[in-house]
Amino acid sequence: MTEFELQLGLDYEVADKATLILNIAPARTAAQIVTGESLSLFGAEHSDWYTDRLNANRFLRINAGKGELSIEYACRIALAADFTPIEQLGERSVADLPVDTVRFLLPSRYCQSDRLGEFAQAEFGKLPPGHVRVMAVRDWVRKHVRFQSGFTNPSTSAVDTLVDRRGVCRDFAHLMIGLCRALSIPARFVAGIDYSDGPRDDPMDFHAYVECWLGERWYLFDPTGLCAVTDLIRIGTGRDAADVAFASIFGAVKCAAPRVEMRRVAGTTPVPLPPTHGASTSIHALGDLGQDVEAARPVRLMPGAIAA
Amino acid sequence: MTEFELQLGLDYEVADKATLILNIAPARTAAQIVTGESLSLFGAEHSDWYTDRLNANRFLRINAGKGELSIEYACRIALAADFTPIEQLGERSVADLPVDTVRFLLPSRYCQSDRLGEFAQAEFGKLPPGHVRVMAVRDWVRKHVRFQSGFTNPSTSAVDTLVDRRGVCRDFAHLMIGLCRALSIPARFVAGIDYSDGPRDDPMDFHAYVECWLGERWYLFDPTGLCAVTDLIRIGTGRDAADVAFASIFGAVKCAAPRVEMRRVAGTTPVPLPPTHGASTSIHALGDLGQDVEAARPVRLMPGAIAA
Amino acid sequence: MTEFELQLGLDYEVADKATLILNIAPARTAAQIVTGESLSLFGAEHSDWYTDRLNANRFLRINAGKGELSIEYACRIALAADFTPIEQLGERSVADLPVDTVRFLLPSRYCQSDRLGEFAQAEFGKLPPGHVRVMAVRDWVRKHVRFQSGFTNPSTSAVDTLVDRRGVCRDFAHLMIGLCRALSIPARFVAGIDYSDGPRDDPMDFHAYVECWLGERWYLFDPTGLCAVTDLIRIGTGRDAADVAFASIFGAVKCAAPRVEMRRVAGTTPVPLPPTHGASTSIHALGDLGQDVEAARPVRLMPGAIAA
Amino acid sequence: MTEFELQLGLDYEVADKATLILNIAPARTAAQIVTGESLSLFGAEHSDWYTDRLNANRFLRINAGKGELSIEYACRIALAADFTPIEQLGERSVADLPVDTVRFLLPSRYCQSDRLGEFAQAEFGKLPPGHVRVMAVRDWVRKHVRFQSGFTNPSTSAVDTLVDRRGVCRDFAHLMIGLCRALSIPARFVAGIDYSDGPRDDPMDFHAYVECWLGERWYLFDPTGLCAVTDLIRIGTGRDAADVAFASIFGAVKCAAPRVEMRRVAGTTPVPLPPTHGASTSIHALGDLGQDVEAARPVRLMPGAIAA
Repeated sequence: MTEFELQLGLDYEVADKATLILNIAPARTAAQIVTGESLSLFGAEHSDWYTDRLNANRFLRINAGKGELSIEYACRIALAADFTPIEQLGERSVADLPVDTVRFLLPSRYCQSDRLGEFAQAEFGKLPPGHVRVMAVRDWVRKHVRFQSGFTNPSTSAVDTLVDRRGVCRDFAHLMIGLCRALSIPARFVAGIDYSDGPRDDPMDFHAYVECWLGERWYLFDPTGLCAVTDLIRIGTGRDAADVAFASIFGAVKCAAPRVEMRRVAGTTPVPLPPTHGASTSIHALGDLGQDVEAARPVRLMPGAIAA
Repeated sequence: MTEFELQLGLDYEVADKATLILNIAPARTAAQIVTGESLSLFGAEHSDWYTDRLNANRFLRINAGKGELSIEYACRIALAADFTPIEQLGERSVADLPVDTVRFLLPSRYCQSDRLGEFAQAEFGKLPPGHVRVMAVRDWVRKHVRFQSGFTNPSTSAVDTLVDRRGVCRDFAHLMIGLCRALSIPARFVAGIDYSDGPRDDPMDFHAYVECWLGERWYLFDPTGLCAVTDLIRIGTGRDAADVAFASIFGAVKCAAPRVEMRRVAGTTPVPLPPTHGASTSIHALGDLGQDVEAARPVRLMPGAIAA
Repeated sequence: MTEFELQLGLDYEVADKATLILNIAPARTAAQIVTGESLSLFGAEHSDWYTDRLNANRFLRINAGKGELSIEYACRIALAADFTPIEQLGERSVADLPVDTVRFLLPSRYCQSDRLGEFAQAEFGKLPPGHVRVMAVRDWVRKHVRFQSGFTNPSTSAVDTLVDRRGVCRDFAHLMIGLCRALSIPARFVAGIDYSDGPRDDPMDFHAYVECWLGERWYLFDPTGLCAVTDLIRIGTGRDAADVAFASIFGAVKCAAPRVEMRRVAGTTPVPLPPTHGASTSIHALGDLGQDVEAARPVRLMPGAIAA
Repeated sequence: MTEFELQLGLDYEVADKATLILNIAPARTAAQIVTGESLSLFGAEHSDWYTDRLNANRFLRINAGKGELSIEYACRIALAADFTPIEQLGERSVADLPVDTVRFLLPSRYCQSDRLGEFAQAEFGKLPPGHVRVMAVRDWVRKHVRFQSGFTNPSTSAVDTLVDRRGVCRDFAHLMIGLCRALSIPARFVAGIDYSDGPRDDPMDFHAYVECWLGERWYLFDPTGLCAVTDLIRIGTGRDAADVAFASIFGAVKCAAPRVEMRRVAGTTPVPLPPTHGASTSIHALGDLGQDVEAARPVRLMPGAIAA
């Protein structure tokens, strides 16, 4: 088990008064234990935490008046990745899908699967259902979309990316999700932080992933190929990016760049790399959110308080 | 209290094998009591009912093999409309919204509120918040969109309708929802049946409505102006039409036109018209779905069985 | 040389007053000689013919008052197809393109080539330039788009068809044009009538084609594969369907279905099938419009007059 | 008459080989006399000038191999603005429009007038036709769209701007053009340089304008309200921005920011401000391009040569 400390500082200038809904706290899942967290608010009039009962996302809602608003959030997370190989996994037919996964077959704001059926069936319809087919979708997106910052914008959708073939992790995820849903595979969007230890210049990054329901649980994929799915700290889960916005702001507010720091807690073990036996071995479940919703303890923090 | 009997017949020809997810059974809400229902299936291999735990929609999932599939659904519903005038209602600020309403601020497949903010603020931003503003949005849509069948299609969205200014009830609803969300008013889509007794040629019709959260509950609106909101039998509720498709079909299936009949049960009282005191008097809450979710009894019908 | 007689009857009901701009007369090109034509108008107040000086399209503009408007147009056309094989043809680099072809590199209403560059380069960028590459584009569209009536509408564009993968001849043409332009190959839209003698149920049909500039002239392609390009009577040529609308109507007008008849003139020779030597043999130039514009004689018909 | 000197420097780094088509030379019109110009090319292998025979745009096509490419263009222009008041101008009915203006009724890449008819008729259809109506369209766009840099991108169209209500001069122009065409008023896009003498920080700017055909000629409008239409040096004219791209680049090329200088020639008179008699007095024709096409003398410059 490895432990991480995450520190996040957010600075806003509120013009008059505003409400912010932040999705910054790591999700509490079976594979991701939040062992402690603290929150300090300066300039907030009121705040409450709430957990979305569908997706287990933890939202911090803050009310602020005119002036500066600062948010200091810190937490310690223990990750227990699990490396079940999934090469043999098949799909569940729609008739057998658990009820809570069915909604992830539906089109959503940025994943218009209702328009992608003809293409998805032609391209992937004859592949063996299950892990093989999902990997084919992932690889198709990886091969046909070019990673390019600054080309897309917050209203860019899967349909746009299928046409323009350029975008960032969020766009890759939306297209993969749209295609999976068009194939009747439940698929959802995961926003998180990649904590990889490797020789990257930027050791930490917000990143978007895809989860597909295969067999009996959700499995994680990264269509960009930039991050290992084992290196994810999960923040939010939803139909698409609309459900897990880092910050939804109601009112006139100026933002500074967020201050983020993350470090491995000394003495804890790095998450082991999964055993290598083929191209797909890095694809593993990092937690079954279905369970997590049950397990989620209500957390309500006062500004400055520390939760155990 | 008035009672209605609804009978629905659906006929499909399944090419090989298929799964259908139908949203045909009236919702069970405080204002809409389903006093009995029956289901007969011919050609189905398996079926189950499930209730969406967010929106209280009742879905019938059917698995069928090659050949004919017939579904005969009937129910009896008692309606208890409530006519609280709402002219004085204000909006809740985002800071005070109940957690379960926040998701209805987010953009969805057919209601891209993320693109409508500039227009909505300019057009409605200075109106008094609450009922007055929602009515202004409703009236704007009613005035600026022309009802025209056959112009739009199932992928038409609020953004399209803002441009093209033509559509059917579903399109009117999507545009009104998108605009309300862009104003930070939770808004959702309601699919139902209009049972109006008036001198219309077609006495019954599937219809799309809008619900907005005002004050302490959801209130119902019809941006088309074609149906009285008091004449609604609610079938489904969701973010937009994607959540409440009448029939989602997985597999190659041919459909015949649905057979629908509805009649008032003799001896029961017509729903009284609300007292007339101004243009907005027809806007009333027909039930607080928040309650309904708690109250929803699990219903599981065997083919041919009758539920009490 | 084969001769055809074409008769076209159009019936309108004008509500108040209206102007119609019709693109119904076959173009006068080197390969398509209009040997005679007649026009009878009932209910027209004024009419004039004009020829678009860029594309050589012949437009009939009619002014009509309230009441019935009938148009009877007939012509006799001699076709002189030419069957130069083009397998060896290369592309002209942009630096060497004739000036009048450059505009057909630009994006247009239904052919948004500005968004298709990434895809077109990835899919076709490494193929040998010229005929081989254009055929690859044509075949890609033919293989990946399904012919389906009623799915698309008049505002459907190449970008839509790349996503939805369904449409009619017009949609196939727009997508092929968009992709060619994204590869720096001038491409334009041709509307015409297919007069094929074969065993089709419907012996005549309005149809949309694509022309690409290769080597020294325009060559004709049919991405649907439904019609032989040798069987075309050319009506209009332009950037896309916007330039060659069959009828542009200004004012409130009701239309009946057009009455169309076409027959081969007895004693004339069918257009010979081109020699068969490979998959691409049906691709032939049917006239160099560049020449045609020079050659186009001004034609101005009085209602009822017959032009020689 | 006022004279200006314009100097333009463009620096490119060509990766392998490339063709550039530049639209940088002021148009030669009756109201804008190019009295001299020079061109110096460094790194070009070949170049030619050509004039688009429809729109009188002057394009410079340059072929370059690997390495640096520098373009120094300079010209002297005499402007003879004409200040005919146009308040009384009506529209020409479609039946009476000159043939060459009809194409400016058609939808184009960035001006999808085919989708704007319902809105345009509802909003402007009952206004008196002509100058009054065009001014109403101009004012509507000015009022309802917010000038904001960085929000839109090169594929943004009139339909997008009608929804998003934000953009730059190009977006304002596209929306105004689309609306005018939807009202059967020929409208086109003008790209130019604003040379205003006023106290602006940035004394010169590329800017987009709209021209509408009213009465007997084209009249110029600026829907942004940022520039006086009397202060325009016209570079290009076309259906929309696609026709008048500053630089169309075929091949892999890196661009530096263009170097632009402009100054009034000493001793020449500033263009007088038009007499002020009402809100619309700044709207004047700056030349009838129809004439210009006839008058345009073929200009072909060798690198470094000076044309008289």
